[in-house]
Amino acid sequence: MRMALEESKKAIGYTNPNPLVGAIIEKNGHILSKGYHKYFGGDHAEVNAIKNALKKGHEIKDSNIYITLEPCFHYGKTPPCVDEILKYKFKKVFIGIKDPNPKVNGKSIEKLRKNGVIVDEGILKDEITELNKFFIKSMNYSIPYINIKYAQSLDGFIYNDSIKGRFTCKESLIDVHKMRKKYQSILVGAGTILKDNPKLNLRYLEGISPIRIVIDKDFDIKSTDFNIFNIPGKNIIFTNSKNYICNSKITKIVYIKDFSILNILKEINKMDINSVLVEGGGKIISLFYDYSDEINVYISNKIFGKGISPFENLKKIKEFHIKNSFIIGENIKLELKRCLRE
Amino acid sequence: MRMALEESKKAIGYTNPNPLVGAIIEKNGHILSKGYHKYFGGDHAEVNAIKNALKKGHEIKDSNIYITLEPCFHYGKTPPCVDEILKYKFKKVFIGIKDPNPKVNGKSIEKLRKNGVIVDEGILKDEITELNKFFIKSMNYSIPYINIKYAQSLDGFIYNDSIKGRFTCKESLIDVHKMRKKYQSILVGAGTILKDNPKLNLRYLEGISPIRIVIDKDFDIKSTDFNIFNIPGKNIIFTNSKNYICNSKITKIVYIKDFSILNILKEINKMDINSVLVEGGGKIISLFYDYSDEINVYISNKIFGKGISPFENLKKIKEFHIKNSFIIGENIKLELKRCLRE
Repeated sequence: MRMALEESKKAIGYTNPNPLVGAIIEKNGHILSKGYHKYFGGDHAEVNAIKNALKKGHEIKDSNIYITLEPCFHYGKTPPCVDEILKYKFKKVFIGIKDPNPKVNGKSIEKLRKNGVIVDEGILKDEITELNKFFIKSMNYSIPYINIKYAQSLDGFIYNDSIKGRFTCKESLIDVHKMRKKYQSILVGAGTILKDNPKLNLRYLEGISPIRIVIDKDFDIKSTDFNIFNIPGKNIIFTNSKNYICNSKITKIVYIKDFSILNILKEINKMDINSVLVEGGGKIISLFYDYSDEINVYISNKIFGKGISPFENLKKIKEFHIKNSFIIGENIKLELKRCLRE
Repeated sequence: MRMALEESKKAIGYTNPNPLVGAIIEKNGHILSKGYHKYFGGDHAEVNAIKNALKKGHEIKDSNIYITLEPCFHYGKTPPCVDEILKYKFKKVFIGIKDPNPKVNGKSIEKLRKNGVIVDEGILKDEITELNKFFIKSMNYSIPYINIKYAQSLDGFIYNDSIKGRFTCKESLIDVHKMRKKYQSILVGAGTILKDNPKLNLRYLEGISPIRIVIDKDFDIKSTDFNIFNIPGKNIIFTNSKNYICNSKITKIVYIKDFSILNILKEINKMDINSVLVEGGGKIISLFYDYSDEINVYISNKIFGKGISPFENLKKIKEFHIKNSFIIGENIKLELKRCLRE
């Protein structure tokens, strides 16, 4: 199963909003073939593993298959994998986690067992769940997985008048891009576009640039001269203003009448976007805080003395679980999980 | 030498303001004896090692000695160790670092060599220097080693109205006491005494409580009802007020006419205190910042949203080198070194 998990990781950043899935076919202790779900719309991991085994001329009957996710039960972009598995007469099926998709959610396991296939489930569950947290959150809650990312000075300020541009180190910047690669979308407020004119794309490494989501309730961005509108990639605007003008530089304008964060997130999820990296300024960070799954803070090695705090709009003290702490170049990166006992 | 270094560490917190020193006597590849400087005023490490070798009935002549610090050259609380080494006719002397004390500083090495003893010097230099940073700073600069320690919320606040008492975890508290054990003194401002009424002693582990130094320029502490005056330990007050009243609860009142931080530090050093753990509030932290050698920040897992910042009085942005980052319970501890390129 660990080998299957490693296979699945090869597609990080390419399968969204689909999960990352890997599969290994084994017979009498020998690996016949490997497979993984390579990109959204492509063959599923088990189908790729079967194809690879056949290509090598192996007889699949009576072999075992290890799949990180329960095979699908439904016709989507590809036919149901559970039927493929039955067709090739596997002896045992080892499954990492159940597919949280309500169309599956144990049905394939049941079908395999009814057809006499031995199924073992729950192997490396925690690691596979962590890897597929976007997919699982979206399937379970119908809103995307939210990661709030920001950088602060050692004394907690996200902005200081005397600092022009970035105040974190190059290594932190590259790390942000590694995160961006994993996320299907980046979200900022209109303020960030107007003030910083960022590109919000993927640089320094290969991959698919996330979809850019801009929250512009009151139609503050009146020009499409900003960087995001003039580089490749998709731009989606969420607004409460009827005056927003559609043009070729904006992929989609979503008018939200009841302009709440929850409604915005539900709409994002409906667009098959199941992960959002919130990179906004203090206002956006505070607004999305209550729906965040994790927070990543880059702490600079500088003391500003004064400036703007990231959570000035919070009404009460919030608590986290500190998951990880790393030194990155001259900075610290903290990975935090929300405390559910709040 | 590593063994000698480990010996020296046994006395952490007990030798101040003396250095930590360990010694090993070896002959033909066999360890004859070990020794370390146990407490201020006690026998030096090499003398202890010699005594231990003699106690066991060993003939010392022609053996080698490993000492983390150059033997002393001068009569202090004990006779010069360099003469002891010559007396017992050691063949080789391995030395970690030179003694930075101007009364020694290479003179003992020279004397040994002149008397035909082979001397090798600079072994494990970095580690021994780090372990004896208090002693070295004081000897070189005539001011003590300064460590600024404070705790902040994740968003950088050291104080928030709605928090009563400590906002860091128990594990961080114990870690602070481990630090206190290493330091000869703790320094706070009058504000901390008046507001928090702390004990500023060593709890949760055995050792000598640091000397408490309180900066009370204007004679703000008008009562000795506070905790520090009513528990065991020494209290030294630095003041600019002629009205300060001496009483049995105050060990010493130091009147400083030109009330600058540098003058205070020089006076502290003159009292044979070579390490100061600054545990003050924002005002004291900012004042001592320019003389600090390191900063230790405990970052809580809480977000306050607003509060008091630690460095509100800084005039320009300051930069650090991040040396270490640890997860301690539910908090993060950062160990920072000042950047000399400022």
